[in-house]
Amino acid sequence: MTIELDFTHDPNAKSWVESANRHPDFPVQNLPLGIFSTADGRRRGGVAIGDMVLDLPALAEVITEGGCEQVLAADAPNLNALVDMGADAMWALRTALFTLLTDESFREGVEPALIPADSVTMHLPFEVHDYTDFYTGIHHATNIGKLFRPDNPLLPNYKYVPIGYHGRSSSIRVSGVEVKRPSGQTKVPDADVPSFGPSKRLDYELEMAIWVGQGNDLGEPIPIGEAESHIAGISILNDWSARDLQAWEYQPLGPFLAKNFHSTVSPWVVTMDALAPYRVAQPPRPEGDPAPLPYLLDAEDQAHGALDVQMEVYISTAKMREAGDAPHRLSSGPMTAMYWTMAQLVAHHSVGGCNLQAGDLLGTGTLTSGEEGGEGSLIELSKGGKQPIELPNGETRTFLEDGDEVIMTAFAEKDGFARIGLGECRAVIVG
Amino acid sequence: MTIELDFTHDPNAKSWVESANRHPDFPVQNLPLGIFSTADGRRRGGVAIGDMVLDLPALAEVITEGGCEQVLAADAPNLNALVDMGADAMWALRTALFTLLTDESFREGVEPALIPADSVTMHLPFEVHDYTDFYTGIHHATNIGKLFRPDNPLLPNYKYVPIGYHGRSSSIRVSGVEVKRPSGQTKVPDADVPSFGPSKRLDYELEMAIWVGQGNDLGEPIPIGEAESHIAGISILNDWSARDLQAWEYQPLGPFLAKNFHSTVSPWVVTMDALAPYRVAQPPRPEGDPAPLPYLLDAEDQAHGALDVQMEVYISTAKMREAGDAPHRLSSGPMTAMYWTMAQLVAHHSVGGCNLQAGDLLGTGTLTSGEEGGEGSLIELSKGGKQPIELPNGETRTFLEDGDEVIMTAFAEKDGFARIGLGECRAVIVG
Repeated sequence: MTIELDFTHDPNAKSWVESANRHPDFPVQNLPLGIFSTADGRRRGGVAIGDMVLDLPALAEVITEGGCEQVLAADAPNLNALVDMGADAMWALRTALFTLLTDESFREGVEPALIPADSVTMHLPFEVHDYTDFYTGIHHATNIGKLFRPDNPLLPNYKYVPIGYHGRSSSIRVSGVEVKRPSGQTKVPDADVPSFGPSKRLDYELEMAIWVGQGNDLGEPIPIGEAESHIAGISILNDWSARDLQAWEYQPLGPFLAKNFHSTVSPWVVTMDALAPYRVAQPPRPEGDPAPLPYLLDAEDQAHGALDVQMEVYISTAKMREAGDAPHRLSSGPMTAMYWTMAQLVAHHSVGGCNLQAGDLLGTGTLTSGEEGGEGSLIELSKGGKQPIELPNGETRTFLEDGDEVIMTAFAEKDGFARIGLGECRAVIVG
Repeated sequence: MTIELDFTHDPNAKSWVESANRHPDFPVQNLPLGIFSTADGRRRGGVAIGDMVLDLPALAEVITEGGCEQVLAADAPNLNALVDMGADAMWALRTALFTLLTDESFREGVEPALIPADSVTMHLPFEVHDYTDFYTGIHHATNIGKLFRPDNPLLPNYKYVPIGYHGRSSSIRVSGVEVKRPSGQTKVPDADVPSFGPSKRLDYELEMAIWVGQGNDLGEPIPIGEAESHIAGISILNDWSARDLQAWEYQPLGPFLAKNFHSTVSPWVVTMDALAPYRVAQPPRPEGDPAPLPYLLDAEDQAHGALDVQMEVYISTAKMREAGDAPHRLSSGPMTAMYWTMAQLVAHHSVGGCNLQAGDLLGTGTLTSGEEGGEGSLIELSKGGKQPIELPNGETRTFLEDGDEVIMTAFAEKDGFARIGLGECRAVIVG
């Protein structure tokens, strides 16, 4: 069967997969990619559409042009090979899927490839070779800076350098995998020597995950104007942090055990094409801030390089779940809290010659909005653990306790367009 | 053919591969593992023996017991699967190879698997999933600390925490691959704003590479007493560093572009079994230093956990090569400059639950001996770039110039035992 390509991706189009048309996250305008398995355990690429998952390799006999190699590349335990095909290939796949799922005439051929989402297991979307965590949330950087360095919260390099560091890729897990509370060295300020034990200041960090698509060769930087075409899409990232371990270990080389015990990502990769309607200008820098250096400056990127995506964090304690209480929202904020655009992160990361590879994870850093209720971590909400947060059932928290579940969500909406969502990034803390 | 195991690994044994018996690096007592290819480009595991490389997969019909699965696992483009079999399997393979290469009766069967070393191409020994760089060289940490933080060279955590940070795995290359000088942001102290351009303070760092063998599961720390059995072996590591980029970017989250443009490792992995004769006690901590916390303390490790390995760094400038001059030795020092043992690094890295995987690279950090002539980097040799080093041909260096080749070697020797070497870790800087 040959597909006639439809490049418009009509924002009002309806799918013959009816659950998609009222779905808060996965209408046909979204089409996020992920890795799933069914009873036989075989991991392969799929697409979320309403309450269903579309099995990409199962389309190999349906899509014979314009997306056919992509569907074959999705017959793998990760999406690395697929996104390494590049932005044009991703667009072609999206276009083919959009047509298949909106044109009733394809229903008979495609329906056998639909699997109820509640019957599949989701996995990490990529084999992550390298994980880099940036620090683009200037309000978070300022808040944390005040706690760790009261006299010097925002260092002089912050507004010039997209600050980032290398994280641990081996301990990245998909949403739903329990997080074991780490042990490590801590030193309370008035103690002479450090002690060892389970972290008492376990925190979440609300971040977005930026996934690298096509990579670059070692020694060949990606220019800012081309940077976005190297991004496959985004997910939600919880960069769990043990604040007490961090405070003692992080100088002079940065966080290590405080972060490397676990990081959680949501399973669906929302592509840059799906996000196109929600692009906005990079918020203007405050008066007096320096302009980005030329290698980070691109007019197109400044005009459209930010995303109007809203993020939320909820907590559900063991007591709340026992009582049947709904999760409690701790904070919410926009992704425009990023001081740097996604393209600037890619350009900066590669400017010295470092090679990015398909499936590399770039964390945005904790995104705190700068407004009350927009704090992206408990250490900010509780003012460094000094002001406990009261939950609706009377429980209080400064940091996370065993049994707590943290749930992050994100979505984009705009007049005249369907709302699209990123799904959930959730995990329970265990002792 | 069945091999009778010989567990003694006689230090005086000679090989029928005659070049091994007078070889400074690769006598039969060494048997380091690496990945090589010949004209057809197929990468597979090999062992250095004298001037030859033993093709491991080619032994599949020779070794039918005691090493047979290992030889099959070596038929791969990296050694990850082989070392993931664990310490006992590595010992069994070594024992089988030792017998094959010392017992003349196996010569006829084995000789066809020997390939002249000068006709093969060496590759990275592992697919490196994660690279962690430690900072165990206390003299280096003190020297660098003085330059970056004159008032506070060695931070209070140094003697409690094996300080380390996550590095970039994608840009690790094998010895011999040219290193492109990185560009990036720098800010000279008296400038108001940073500028962008090629690094002017490009440096090497003399480190040893510790390769992880069998890994651990997420959330399951490796106890100190078992840590060494998770180490496959060691190579030499040059952790190239752009000091000017580093000074401007490294706070508060550690080095990033200053290090991630390239790291070079030597191709041969000298196993823990080969290093057994050169084990020594961890040097006693200076009077007044705290004892390691219990999770890092093991009597056996303190008694035998350090290695008496000598390291050397040479420079060969373009002019020197044109004139046919020999490389000039810049410094030398012992691996016992490590403030922490290899086992302590493994135990610390995993104590919060972080999972290590076969082929992970742990850098020791720059190993400076603490004595004149034992500086492991140019920034130390040139006192922060203030005192140029004069080379024998009259050239001077504070940092590396284009065309400079840096060559690192390492070896172990001891009365009554063969000298074994790690080969070379070398690369030329290009602009």
